[in-house]
Amino acid sequence: MDADRTVFSYSDTEAMRVALDAAGHGVRGANPLVGAAVRGADGTLAVGWHRGAGTPHAEVDALLRARSEGIDLTDSTLYVSLEPCNHTGRTGPCADLIADAGIPRVVYAYPDLHHTAAGGAERLRDLGVEVVGGLLADDAHALNARWFAAKAAHRPFVTLKLAQSLDGRIAAADGTSRWISSQESRDHVHALRARVDAILVGTGTAIADNPRLTARDEGGRERAEQPVPVVLGEREIPADSHLGRNPATLRLHTHDPAEAVRQLGAAGIEHLLVEGGAHVAGAFLAADLVDEIELYIAPLLLGEGLPAVRGLEVATLSDAYRFTPDFAGPEAPARLGPDVFLRLVPAPDPNRSDADPDCSASDQHPSERDTAD
Amino acid sequence: MDADRTVFSYSDTEAMRVALDAAGHGVRGANPLVGAAVRGADGTLAVGWHRGAGTPHAEVDALLRARSEGIDLTDSTLYVSLEPCNHTGRTGPCADLIADAGIPRVVYAYPDLHHTAAGGAERLRDLGVEVVGGLLADDAHALNARWFAAKAAHRPFVTLKLAQSLDGRIAAADGTSRWISSQESRDHVHALRARVDAILVGTGTAIADNPRLTARDEGGRERAEQPVPVVLGEREIPADSHLGRNPATLRLHTHDPAEAVRQLGAAGIEHLLVEGGAHVAGAFLAADLVDEIELYIAPLLLGEGLPAVRGLEVATLSDAYRFTPDFAGPEAPARLGPDVFLRLVPAPDPNRSDADPDCSASDQHPSERDTAD
Repeated sequence: MDADRTVFSYSDTEAMRVALDAAGHGVRGANPLVGAAVRGADGTLAVGWHRGAGTPHAEVDALLRARSEGIDLTDSTLYVSLEPCNHTGRTGPCADLIADAGIPRVVYAYPDLHHTAAGGAERLRDLGVEVVGGLLADDAHALNARWFAAKAAHRPFVTLKLAQSLDGRIAAADGTSRWISSQESRDHVHALRARVDAILVGTGTAIADNPRLTARDEGGRERAEQPVPVVLGEREIPADSHLGRNPATLRLHTHDPAEAVRQLGAAGIEHLLVEGGAHVAGAFLAADLVDEIELYIAPLLLGEGLPAVRGLEVATLSDAYRFTPDFAGPEAPARLGPDVFLRLVPAPDPNRSDADPDCSASDQHPSERDTAD
Repeated sequence: MDADRTVFSYSDTEAMRVALDAAGHGVRGANPLVGAAVRGADGTLAVGWHRGAGTPHAEVDALLRARSEGIDLTDSTLYVSLEPCNHTGRTGPCADLIADAGIPRVVYAYPDLHHTAAGGAERLRDLGVEVVGGLLADDAHALNARWFAAKAAHRPFVTLKLAQSLDGRIAAADGTSRWISSQESRDHVHALRARVDAILVGTGTAIADNPRLTARDEGGRERAEQPVPVVLGEREIPADSHLGRNPATLRLHTHDPAEAVRQLGAAGIEHLLVEGGAHVAGAFLAADLVDEIELYIAPLLLGEGLPAVRGLEVATLSDAYRFTPDFAGPEAPARLGPDVFLRLVPAPDPNRSDADPDCSASDQHPSERDTAD
């Protein structure tokens, strides 16, 4: 049953919008954002979303919520932003769980093309469930456009972390940088570190800052599971540094971000956090290998300090690196103590030759802009 | 009745906190932020705040709300963050309105020292109302610390507007700058322009951008009342430019922000908006003559473009210009289309010799900061 032959009702579209909004509450990185909604016969909606590895998939989350709210599943439709999986991973195949729950009809937005878990729609039909795909497929694709592109390229999803002053500086002119961002921001970064597979810095940062690149809890203790520390670049790092002493440290003797993500993808890294320095951040941006920026802005001005990003070579405004703010959730942008936290997704560049032609987020481009005069 | 001899109840403090929070919803600039709350005998609170020139004062706003909610004013206490006025301006003296309403008890936080409207507490007592001052006086002072300082110095309250990229740039390297901030940001700036008394730019901006500095509505039409356009600096501006042709344009042949605000204060300007360029922004910041920043951040990176602020001369992190974000209101920081809007108040500098010794906002300093490592 093809989407272009299917006429969806207004309430179908409405429920799918709710599922798409719910997806935005999820965790960005190793997995795509997925949201779901169960609509009962009286129009009641029970919403669910995927909260990251090891937690129930969005459709199962919505089914659990619907059951607890007393919705009769045998007279309900399940809406899900991505085709249900047919894969026995940590959570079992959703297709079977949905059929077992007695759901007679499933509407999904975007097919599961890249994933090992594809084939869920077919499986559901085999189990006697009516399945329709393609409702708000463009929106569903846009939600995970960068994730799909990373999967297709067999590379990790890349998060760039920047913690900077209002004027985009990570240190004062003399290099002093401690006490720029708040304790709340620091804790937030450690929660991010705890869910990535690897953290990458350049040799310059490895040498200058002697970082540990570990994920620590709010008391400063190292968590049980640690991301792989990765050092990019040709220079040697001191053997007695934190990273030099850590047997887990992965050295990538290249300056090329494309080569780095190729090697990391081959090594099974699904979510990479890039933490700097400024040249590495610029190189990943210039190579279009940043899938999102997690930006922490501290309320101070540093004037002619060290910039957070170098080497962008923007000569004129039309060359600017443009982003779409990820305002999912009611409190985005978020306050982290005195700091502001902002998540940004690269805006698709229609002129870029390597742009995904299937990508349909271009309507998110800001329009009708002007400067004050 | 002195504050230090008065024991306030928990419900007094609670109601005053509500009044202080309400104050933050007001309009910054020509008038101080003031909030009020009426607490009825059963503990019901009716909240009010001042919404800017020509609108009811906070206490009157709260009284109106209390009446509409059926609270018996003759058995209520009125809490107000600033001593009620004794001044017949556009709205009549609040002291008389409060007494006429039958309110038997008034608690205020901070005395009205600098205003032409002082003397309200005395007037209320003469009218038979019990009046107590000083509850949460430090918080009430901090709320308007910069406004009080500007009044005491007989200068306008100064708002600096910055509209910049994520990396603190107002233009690309070749000077192109149109289409940086969003339409929503532009409309927000025009609403700001509409309520200030004067808008100042330097000669460099006047010559390079040929701005009009007018307040326009969302359709682009000039509003009936216009702020005074002010040009700072020694250079001549073209006679056929917008500002050169405007007979209202005020030329200040100086580079010194202190001299500029002295002259503007003498001319009756109570709220000044500084719109640039970068050197003028830096000069006002360096002279500690910025009372708040209204910051518009557009989601793009410009690399080595033109900075929004120049000449800060921050050598090391302890010299940084630090601010306290003004997060009043549930949606702060605010989204303006794809942009983020942030209001910032200079953090009091305990080492600065010209700091107001009466200023008690130092507990708003961010503490316990760290960088990730």
